Amino acid sequence: MARVVVDVMLKPEILDPQGQAVQGALARLGFAGVTAVRQGKRFELELAGEASDQQLATAERAAQTLLANPVIEDYRVRVEG
Amino acid sequence: MARVVVDVMLKPEILDPQGQAVQGALARLGFAGVTAVRQGKRFELELAGEASDQQLATAERAAQTLLANPVIEDYRVRVEG
Repeated sequence: MARVVVDVMLKPEILDPQGQAVQGALARLGFAGVTAVRQGKRFELELAGEASDQQLATAERAAQTLLANPVIEDYRVRVEG
Repeated sequence: MARVVVDVMLKPEILDPQGQAVQGALARLGFAGVTAVRQGKRFELELAGEASDQQLATAERAAQTLLANPVIEDYRVRVEG
């Protein structure tokens, strides 16, 4: 059983109102040192079989077609140790 | 500028309908090898100053009070290298 993690974040040039709301809330709660927040998604996929290049390629395709919107989001696929 | 990442996932014993929907969609798209999916959140916090134990403690408190619901979610705080 391979566990693959896909992190999906908005591209840096895309405005992130959700992250800004979190930052504002942190400021109101007294967390003054937080200068920026960006919020994204994290997917944990369990794949049948051992972790292999083929499994990673599968996860990469899944990220590109379903998990992320490549127009506005960056994604990173990695095997979780 | 320290960048701290907070990963928030539902606890393993909590049902994750969002992840199940993603898994169903992947199956329909032909990704047969994906046996389970869980979806969570990823926050990237930028903190003023260098990464230190104090910064990490701040991020930990932020995670506990605002970013995660400790009743149903687990969170992990780490400095991004």
